[in-house]
Amino acid sequence: MIASEQYKTEQKAKANKEVITKIQKTKPILIDMGIVGEVVPHFQHNMILTSGAPLPWEDYEGGQKEAIIYGAIFEGLAENREEAVKKIKTKEILIAPCHDYSCIGSVTGIYTASMPVFIVEDANTGVRAYCNLFEGEIHEKLTYGLYNDKTKRNLHFLRRVVTPILQQAIKTSGGINLLEIIRRAINMGDELHSRNTAASLLFTRELTPYLLDLYKESPENTRATLQYLENDYNFLRLGMAASKALSDSCSKTEHSSIVTAMAFSCKEFAIRVSGTGNQWFRAPLPTGQVRLFEGYSEKDVAWLGGESSITETMGLGGFVQAAALTLQDYSGGKPEKMIDNNKRMYEITLDEHSVYKLPIFEFRGAPIGIDIFKVVEKGITPVINMGVAHKEGGQIGAGVVNAPLKCFEDAVNAYNQRYR
Amino acid sequence: MIASEQYKTEQKAKANKEVITKIQKTKPILIDMGIVGEVVPHFQHNMILTSGAPLPWEDYEGGQKEAIIYGAIFEGLAENREEAVKKIKTKEILIAPCHDYSCIGSVTGIYTASMPVFIVEDANTGVRAYCNLFEGEIHEKLTYGLYNDKTKRNLHFLRRVVTPILQQAIKTSGGINLLEIIRRAINMGDELHSRNTAASLLFTRELTPYLLDLYKESPENTRATLQYLENDYNFLRLGMAASKALSDSCSKTEHSSIVTAMAFSCKEFAIRVSGTGNQWFRAPLPTGQVRLFEGYSEKDVAWLGGESSITETMGLGGFVQAAALTLQDYSGGKPEKMIDNNKRMYEITLDEHSVYKLPIFEFRGAPIGIDIFKVVEKGITPVINMGVAHKEGGQIGAGVVNAPLKCFEDAVNAYNQRYR
Repeated sequence: MIASEQYKTEQKAKANKEVITKIQKTKPILIDMGIVGEVVPHFQHNMILTSGAPLPWEDYEGGQKEAIIYGAIFEGLAENREEAVKKIKTKEILIAPCHDYSCIGSVTGIYTASMPVFIVEDANTGVRAYCNLFEGEIHEKLTYGLYNDKTKRNLHFLRRVVTPILQQAIKTSGGINLLEIIRRAINMGDELHSRNTAASLLFTRELTPYLLDLYKESPENTRATLQYLENDYNFLRLGMAASKALSDSCSKTEHSSIVTAMAFSCKEFAIRVSGTGNQWFRAPLPTGQVRLFEGYSEKDVAWLGGESSITETMGLGGFVQAAALTLQDYSGGKPEKMIDNNKRMYEITLDEHSVYKLPIFEFRGAPIGIDIFKVVEKGITPVINMGVAHKEGGQIGAGVVNAPLKCFEDAVNAYNQRYR
Repeated sequence: MIASEQYKTEQKAKANKEVITKIQKTKPILIDMGIVGEVVPHFQHNMILTSGAPLPWEDYEGGQKEAIIYGAIFEGLAENREEAVKKIKTKEILIAPCHDYSCIGSVTGIYTASMPVFIVEDANTGVRAYCNLFEGEIHEKLTYGLYNDKTKRNLHFLRRVVTPILQQAIKTSGGINLLEIIRRAINMGDELHSRNTAASLLFTRELTPYLLDLYKESPENTRATLQYLENDYNFLRLGMAASKALSDSCSKTEHSSIVTAMAFSCKEFAIRVSGTGNQWFRAPLPTGQVRLFEGYSEKDVAWLGGESSITETMGLGGFVQAAALTLQDYSGGKPEKMIDNNKRMYEITLDEHSVYKLPIFEFRGAPIGIDIFKVVEKGITPVINMGVAHKEGGQIGAGVVNAPLKCFEDAVNAYNQRYR
């Protein structure tokens, strides 16, 4: 190795170590809730955030396009579809990627000014991230590109009933330690992406004493909030926000080759790498192995975007799937295959988490720090657990996909170009 | 095979099928709570129930003996140790096995007249079982042979504060479906003997709406009850009662060779078999592989009795340990060994449970119906997860033991004798 090559290698190793240390030391705390327009930095009232690397308006399609239009109508930025589309084209309504605004999108990932969000701070770095709320048990979710009066009423319910109660409980608690919940949940069969059953229960248990305090003043709203919390999915948004706060603290570290975001739009998969800043490296949508709910077939499947793969980026989801074998039932796959998928992730990562540990691997730490060079060298790409959407909206299944190699190759080229 | 032999084989198969059907169809419901002296059939006010096949008084020793004496003092049957021992010898105080009174003992398994119990009914057969409450986080547990003012105050707290609140919540709920909680808990890393983390959370979630109702009238007691429920062990007693109700419904089926109880006293391990009724088959205590809490060594270990192995008898605990690999941390053992232990249990059982299913085995049902003939033929005995006690009381670890073969051999002999 010539001297300059060796220097580059050392620079990279040093930068990656810095990032890995942040991942190891992360301490995500749910500190508060707020309204997007009031708490998300740089957010403008006429903005709609959506999932994935940004696309020209013409390229949005299907459920993600619908969700953006519905977002505009829900927020009162437009009276109807036509007006919404017109204002988007004239930039009276601005479309922007969640990732650029400290937010993280579930499926279509729509954020508008009046929506409530969880505020998660990584106490290790002070970096904050925001995530909106799971829409609950209704079928017509804006998250999945659907919208009607029921959707609207439900979104209002989340803001007017659930948020004030949850916010007060969170504030009284002094902050909820999400790291500890995630750690325990992995021991209880969650991988924190497709399965959040234990984490959701543990989260509710943490809040319950504070909810009791509120029950005296607001019995009905408190009861409704507890009822809302009874679902098995609400923690996903908190795991996403925890992972997003961490990933933002890891981003833009010069020379680091660690992946800081993996995101889907309706058209593309894309990644960001710490050492190359906010640049997106794009690739066509991957194929995956999916399991559809009864009554649906492959031809019903559509991509609506999604950034919950931030969990995999930070060592959860597919990267701890061997802890969540119950997912066979939900997303398909044999236990051996899931264990194997999980093991392969150690080949493309730089360290093992000191808190997130897998019982089935004798408490080996979760694989963390996806290195673009390792991915390209081994030809192994990150495995991502995810929900599967219907082309006309709604969730119709779940599955596992392998990220496409091309964007990692492009990232390696861009990295080499930059640090030539 | 001569005709009479074939007839015997058919009789046995038919009887075992009857028992297996009961196991498959069990529907344990927590229907109420009550006070031992008021609800346990045939219980007498001067009685103390304790774990295991009954021993002459002289043979009780260590923590189990202490617990019996303390039970007498707690109940006011005696003023002090000397009086307690004297009255036990003169039969003014009666010692009896839990198993004969529809009760099931955790470790020393002490039941006295004024103690509260959960009442679990198998809705399939109408058979009821009773189990007292987990003593909570205090170290000085009567369950583990310890007793002082703190123990006493805590037992009073359970009766006077926790029980009335829980009882009302349970009654208002119309009954809590324990089968569904157990099913879900196995998917969440519990085996329902040494690990009840998920089941305890799920149980609390079931009760929470009803506890809210009570909060209006009794805020302090309701809050204290919710606090009590915050431990990870309370469900063990409910899993035990569910298993005991089922095992009692399975017992005394003529010709059946299925095990209906496995229990420890401080001196012996013993089993009961359906077709041989209430007869105990005894063996010396087994050795096991244990993991001790820091600061303790093998010489501190003592046997205090215990009937929580009713869970294994009915297809839980060690029989689903491959679902609970997190237990490595608690009771020791490598994942491969736990998976192997679990697999071996299919060799000595007659069927697979249609509701309790193991994700790691592609949702194969838990092994159910321990057949004494299979045990003896294969030389494989049931594997039992259990807590480990200190010789002076208290829990100092956990581990896995293999039941001794001798009692199964004796049971086979007695069976052959009876159905000659």
